[in-house]
Amino acid sequence: MNQELRQHIEKIVSLTDEEFDFVLSHFNQKRFLKHQFLIQEGDTVDNDFFIINGLLKASHRNEENKEHILQFATEGSWITDPQAYHNQTKATLNIQCLEDGNSLFITLDNKEKLCNSLQKMDSFFRKKTTKEYILLQRRILCLISNNAKNRYEDLLKQYPSLIQRVPKTMIASYLGVSRETLSRLATS
Amino acid sequence: MNQELRQHIEKIVSLTDEEFDFVLSHFNQKRFLKHQFLIQEGDTVDNDFFIINGLLKASHRNEENKEHILQFATEGSWITDPQAYHNQTKATLNIQCLEDGNSLFITLDNKEKLCNSLQKMDSFFRKKTTKEYILLQRRILCLISNNAKNRYEDLLKQYPSLIQRVPKTMIASYLGVSRETLSRLATS
Repeated sequence: MNQELRQHIEKIVSLTDEEFDFVLSHFNQKRFLKHQFLIQEGDTVDNDFFIINGLLKASHRNEENKEHILQFATEGSWITDPQAYHNQTKATLNIQCLEDGNSLFITLDNKEKLCNSLQKMDSFFRKKTTKEYILLQRRILCLISNNAKNRYEDLLKQYPSLIQRVPKTMIASYLGVSRETLSRLATS
Repeated sequence: MNQELRQHIEKIVSLTDEEFDFVLSHFNQKRFLKHQFLIQEGDTVDNDFFIINGLLKASHRNEENKEHILQFATEGSWITDPQAYHNQTKATLNIQCLEDGNSLFITLDNKEKLCNSLQKMDSFFRKKTTKEYILLQRRILCLISNNAKNRYEDLLKQYPSLIQRVPKTMIASYLGVSRETLSRLATS
């Protein structure tokens, strides 16, 4: 399980064995089960989760209790409620497990300590967040230009196995389209 | 002009005078004029711009030549085509000046050198990008939940003076709504 994290970090910065052991000492393991919530709206959010295997979704429920899916996370992804985690405010998102799986998680306090004591990790999180920022900008552009086809193709590229793993209603919720529109996209 | 940059950085990390002089030595100044393009689609993107004063927009034109505004930048904001800048690919965005102004800009090479030689700046850019990431996530949530009212209110909060400074068609383009919907939002 630790090798997955090491390979993930080393896509951006290389680490010695000693450095990786030091990184790892800032993480804890958590196994999760299908249907379990890692974070529920209103919780304090202590952890950022690196997913070793399994599948999760981060979603928000509006006042009419309609669910909007903001993010999926599969092997090699990070997931948390970033606003609540970084600003130490209450969660506005729900993070629920769609499959059993395993994660390594890090508290904000440990992340800051790690970044302060090992600059490579400061650099890793900076570059990783920049990559995620670029993906979100692209998703916004597809949303404001109402280009559901690009959104669908980007989703397939980012999570190739997702279509087989989650109900179509969830894909439609992530894309912000109706089930009917999704069916048209999937067959076009 | 340099004080604006220092105050901006010091909202996140504090710097000694020597450190700030070192930071500043990695930036260059650029004055820009209304209507000027800082970046055009197809350009190589060398610089990330910190805006001292003035107003700019980052937008994309689709195949039908319809413009979609991804970002505005006013005093104290950063603007570039992040994908092209960080991945050293050709620009897919246009960045155009809507008012005369001044900026300090940094090349990717200089940003990496700066981050490598002064960890505080690695930390600054990590935390700054995280804040921007959180704002984009919120914007996506408003877009997929079709909550144009929240998008409009977030925009007013982020850029309080914008409504007086740009045509309503641009605000509508940023929000991904029609002019008619915008009029309803602005009066409700």
